Amino acid sequence: MSDLIDVPRGLNGVVAAETAISDVDGDAGFYHYRGHSAVDLARTRRFEDVWHLLVVGAMPDDPGAFAERIATAQSDDRLAPLLSAVRAQSDQPLAVLRAVWTLAASLRRCPSLYDLDEAGRLDEAIAFAAMAPLALAPSAERMPAGRGVVSDYLERVTGATPHEAHVRALSAYLVAAMDHGFNASTFTARVIASTGADMASCLTGALGALSGPLHGGAPARALDSLDAAGDDPAAWIAGELSAGRRLMGFGHAVYRTADPRSELLREVARGLGGDRVVQALAFQAEAERQLAVRHPERPLRANVEFYAAVVLEQCGIPREMFTPTFALARTIGWTAHVLEQARDPKIIRPAARYVGPGSTR
Amino acid sequence: MSDLIDVPRGLNGVVAAETAISDVDGDAGFYHYRGHSAVDLARTRRFEDVWHLLVVGAMPDDPGAFAERIATAQSDDRLAPLLSAVRAQSDQPLAVLRAVWTLAASLRRCPSLYDLDEAGRLDEAIAFAAMAPLALAPSAERMPAGRGVVSDYLERVTGATPHEAHVRALSAYLVAAMDHGFNASTFTARVIASTGADMASCLTGALGALSGPLHGGAPARALDSLDAAGDDPAAWIAGELSAGRRLMGFGHAVYRTADPRSELLREVARGLGGDRVVQALAFQAEAERQLAVRHPERPLRANVEFYAAVVLEQCGIPREMFTPTFALARTIGWTAHVLEQARDPKIIRPAARYVGPGSTR
Repeated sequence: MSDLIDVPRGLNGVVAAETAISDVDGDAGFYHYRGHSAVDLARTRRFEDVWHLLVVGAMPDDPGAFAERIATAQSDDRLAPLLSAVRAQSDQPLAVLRAVWTLAASLRRCPSLYDLDEAGRLDEAIAFAAMAPLALAPSAERMPAGRGVVSDYLERVTGATPHEAHVRALSAYLVAAMDHGFNASTFTARVIASTGADMASCLTGALGALSGPLHGGAPARALDSLDAAGDDPAAWIAGELSAGRRLMGFGHAVYRTADPRSELLREVARGLGGDRVVQALAFQAEAERQLAVRHPERPLRANVEFYAAVVLEQCGIPREMFTPTFALARTIGWTAHVLEQARDPKIIRPAARYVGPGSTR
Repeated sequence: MSDLIDVPRGLNGVVAAETAISDVDGDAGFYHYRGHSAVDLARTRRFEDVWHLLVVGAMPDDPGAFAERIATAQSDDRLAPLLSAVRAQSDQPLAVLRAVWTLAASLRRCPSLYDLDEAGRLDEAIAFAAMAPLALAPSAERMPAGRGVVSDYLERVTGATPHEAHVRALSAYLVAAMDHGFNASTFTARVIASTGADMASCLTGALGALSGPLHGGAPARALDSLDAAGDDPAAWIAGELSAGRRLMGFGHAVYRTADPRSELLREVARGLGGDRVVQALAFQAEAERQLAVRHPERPLRANVEFYAAVVLEQCGIPREMFTPTFALARTIGWTAHVLEQARDPKIIRPAARYVGPGSTR
C-alpha cells in the first residue's frame, strides 16, 4: 500500500475526532463538560442533570421529565427476565452488563444508528445507559419511584437504604468520572459507531476496552496500600519506594498539577469523615512528601484513584464493585460520544504497515 | 491540549500498527496471508490449516493435531448449556455469539491477555474462535468427529448432510474472507487488545464493528439485484444507473483492478454451476459493460460481495446467514490480530480536538 502516514506509536496525540463533549487541560489541572467545570458539576448537580448535559448538550429545562424518562426505560417489561437469565450464567458485573446490552438490543431489534433520526438515537442512548445500574448491581429489585439513579444503585449494591450523605458522595464521584477526554474505551465506542453499528455494539466494545488493566486500572489497589501501611505510612512508603515499587494512586499521565478530580474527592472524603479518611489524609501527605524528595523534577500527586477508592469504600461499596461503578459513570460519556460520532458519516479506519515475510507469488 | 497532530479524517492512511499477518496490494489486485497468496490458499488448503497459519504464523506440521485441538475446545462441557441459555434470549446469530463469548469468558474466568504467556494466549484464541461456528449456526448439535469445521457448520446451518462440493466452495469463501488488511473491526479488536483486556472483550468489540452497515455491508443485496433483474439484466441495469442508483456488488475502495476474491469466487461459482450462476455471469458482464461506458475514468468491477452471495446461496446458506458466515471467517483474522497486538505493551489512545463551547471557569 502506498501513501502511509507515520505517526507516534499508539496514535499518541493524533486527532481521531473532533468533540464538543469534554476537554481536559492537564497543565492547568482543569477539565470540563461542554464548558461547565466538571468538578463544580460534581459538587452541585444531580447525576441525572449532568447525564442530560452530556447526551443532549445542555442542562435539562425539566429535570423531572428526564428522570421520568430514565425510570420508564428501566421499567421495560423485557428487562427483568433478561437480567435473571443472564445472571444465571455469570456473577461478574461487567460480563452481565455486556450480555444484557447485547441481548436487549436483539430483543428490541435495534437498528443501525444510521437508520435513526436524532430523537431515535437519543432514545437508544437513554435506554441503554439506563440498563447499566440494573445490570451491574447484584439485584435489579424495583425501588420506590423518584429517588434517583444513584440512590437506587447504592441500595442495590449494599442491600440497605442508603444515607443521604453517601448518595451525595457517590453522585459526586460518578459525575466526576462520566467522561475524561479521549481514552481507549471512548475511542473504541466511536470507532464502532463510525461503522453505523447499533448502540449496544458501541457500548459493549467500550466496556471491553475499559476492562483492560491498562485502561480501567485497579481502583481498589489504593486501599490495599492503606491496609498494608497501617499506622506507620512513613515507614511503609519508604520501604516501597526503596524497593523500586510505584505507589498506587499517585501520578497521572495528563495532569502536571494536582488532579482536580482527586482534590474534589478528597474534599468529599473529608465531608464523610471516619478513621479511614484520617488515615488516607496522612498517607497522602507523607507519600507526596517522600515522592517530592525522590522525584523533585516532576510533581507526583494523589490521582483520582486514590480518593475515589476511599470515597467508594466509605459509601459501603465493596472493592469488587469499584470497576463496575466506574463503568456505570463512564457509560454516560460513551453514549454521548456515540451520539456525536453518529452525526459523522465517515468511517474510522486507519492503516497498518506490513512488516511480515515477503509475498511468495 | 497542546501538540495535537492533524491527520486525514477517519485516520485514513494513518499507520496505527505494524502487522505481519496480511497485506493487500490494491494496485496489483493481490493480497496475501503471511506471504502466501490468499486466493491460492482458498483454492488448495483446508480452513483449519489457514486458521493455523494466521494465528500461529506458519502452516501446521501436524494438521490433525490442530483439528483435534479445535474439536476439544468445542466439546467443552460448559458450552452447550450456555448456548441453550443464550439462544432462549435471542434468535440473532451475531447477538448469540457476542453473548456467548462474553459469558464464556466469565465462566472460564479468563484473565487479561497480559497475564498469559504466548501459549496461554494461543489457547484462548483457539477456544474463542472455536465457539463461533457453534454459536452462529442455529444448532450446536454434536457432529461425527473428524469432518472439519466447515462441513459441521454447513450441516448445522442447512440441517442436511452437505455435499462435498459445497463444503469445498464454502471453505474457499471462508478462507478468502478471514482477513483483509486493516478494517474497522480488526482495528477495534486491536484497540481493545491494547488495553490488555481479555480475548472475549476484543472479539465482541470487533463483532460489533462488523455489524455496522459501513463495514459488513449487506452481502445478500447482490441477490436482490439478480432477483429484480430476472432475464433482462441489460434493461434493469440501465434503469438503475439512469435513476442514479449504485449497483450493489460492484466497485471497491482498495482494488483498482479486479478484486482477486471476486475472481476466485466466480471460479468457485462456475464450478458449482446452476441457473443462478449462469444468470450471475450474464449480469456481471452486462453490468461491467454499462459501468465502463458511464465511468470510463475508473474501472468498476464485480467486488467480493457479488460472487460471495452467489456461492453462499448455491451452498444452501439462507440470506440472513450471510453476515454471520462472514463473521465466522473474520473471527480467525481477529484472533490473529489480537495475539499480535498483545505482544505490544503500548495502549492505542489517540486524541480529540475540542471544538465545543469555551469553558466557563
